[in-house]
Amino acid sequence: MNDLTRDGFLGGRLQLWQPRRGYRAGVDPVILAATVPETARSVLDMGCGVGAAGLCVAARLGSAQVTGLEVQAAYAALAQRNALENGLAFDVVQGDLTDMPRAVRDRQFDHVIANPPYFLRDRTTPARDEGRETAMGEGATLAAWVRAGARRVRDRGEVTMIQRADRLPELLALFTRFLGSVRVLPLMPRPGRDSQLVLIRGRKGGRAAFRLHAGVQIHLSDRHESDRPDYAPLIRAVLHDAAALPFP
Amino acid sequence: MNDLTRDGFLGGRLQLWQPRRGYRAGVDPVILAATVPETARSVLDMGCGVGAAGLCVAARLGSAQVTGLEVQAAYAALAQRNALENGLAFDVVQGDLTDMPRAVRDRQFDHVIANPPYFLRDRTTPARDEGRETAMGEGATLAAWVRAGARRVRDRGEVTMIQRADRLPELLALFTRFLGSVRVLPLMPRPGRDSQLVLIRGRKGGRAAFRLHAGVQIHLSDRHESDRPDYAPLIRAVLHDAAALPFP
Repeated sequence: MNDLTRDGFLGGRLQLWQPRRGYRAGVDPVILAATVPETARSVLDMGCGVGAAGLCVAARLGSAQVTGLEVQAAYAALAQRNALENGLAFDVVQGDLTDMPRAVRDRQFDHVIANPPYFLRDRTTPARDEGRETAMGEGATLAAWVRAGARRVRDRGEVTMIQRADRLPELLALFTRFLGSVRVLPLMPRPGRDSQLVLIRGRKGGRAAFRLHAGVQIHLSDRHESDRPDYAPLIRAVLHDAAALPFP
Repeated sequence: MNDLTRDGFLGGRLQLWQPRRGYRAGVDPVILAATVPETARSVLDMGCGVGAAGLCVAARLGSAQVTGLEVQAAYAALAQRNALENGLAFDVVQGDLTDMPRAVRDRQFDHVIANPPYFLRDRTTPARDEGRETAMGEGATLAAWVRAGARRVRDRGEVTMIQRADRLPELLALFTRFLGSVRVLPLMPRPGRDSQLVLIRGRKGGRAAFRLHAGVQIHLSDRHESDRPDYAPLIRAVLHDAAALPFP
């Protein structure tokens, strides 16, 4: 993994090395990171890749202890390098979420975030790039991600994931089984369009009724009419000014 | 059940007798009925009560054969009376959805609609009125409603239900299990507020990915400021002009 690019996030506050080919962090981990409440003192980013979500949390919540877990050594090394070069406190542990290294397994976190791979291995053609395949193609099942998150979060702590909207039925079943007080915040690309992505949050030991929040619109207009992304003001603030995107 | 009122629906096109006390039809069955596609030639309204949803379908889709199933004899009788007095073709069958009478059990429908009771018996204090208790307090489980709907709909036909949003996790699991091509259309009371109700639709034998549609807003403004309901134009057209509310 020698062919790298260095890309700006959060309006340039964060500069991340990532492979030119293969899985590349976009807006999704940034939006996920923006939902972590300021009250979280310790945060685990499961499957952190090059560290986009975890480093966005670290950049916004200066005093939180942020840990990243990444199964692929090359991505874990890039995440650690990105932490150092951005001067942010972000501990990266290489390991598998289904067989966690002791450094993570022995801890409990206030908040766990994850952006699990979007494509099931058995549904898609294998990608050529091995790193891309693991990042996009899902080694562990979605159930393993939710179970691992529920185990690593403290009692009354929260797990938040971002995922494709078409996997909501499976996610809701898993969050209801392993967590409680489940809530969904749909992300809608444009007015009137189906959600492509959802944020889902559960509280360990929570017993509140399920809540379906009003959706957050990513883009402003009905269609894309210019060369620049026409982000809605809230999303623009999240992406460029490191603003928070609190659950209601 | 002698103390009745006669209330106008669909801008007065429909006049329905219903008990003054107990379960009273509101906007929910009217919205549910508005989602039935014009292509449906036969429609079953499971748990039809006084016939609000089924009669709204019959009023809008003149040539569809609409059947209502209602467990409580007094409500079934009122539904039949409402059909006659409004001059609409709506066959009412008295019977239990978990043990359907042959007149319904022997048939398959293009579309099945249901507005299952909103309160679980084991979660609420029993209501005083017996009819109200059955209508509000759920005799059959939600699973029985979805299973019965899936059995009575023809292959490739659709089942649509309206239900409290906090029961979405349970509903999604059931629709995914007994039907396919599941879609959710959230109903939001006001801008930015959580959904209180959801419409959920599944197709028998469908294999399409789950879809979360953009929510439909019921009221126009952030808060209720006048004595009249400030319905959004689309909902006003559904309630007052018998307009359709198609799934996207």
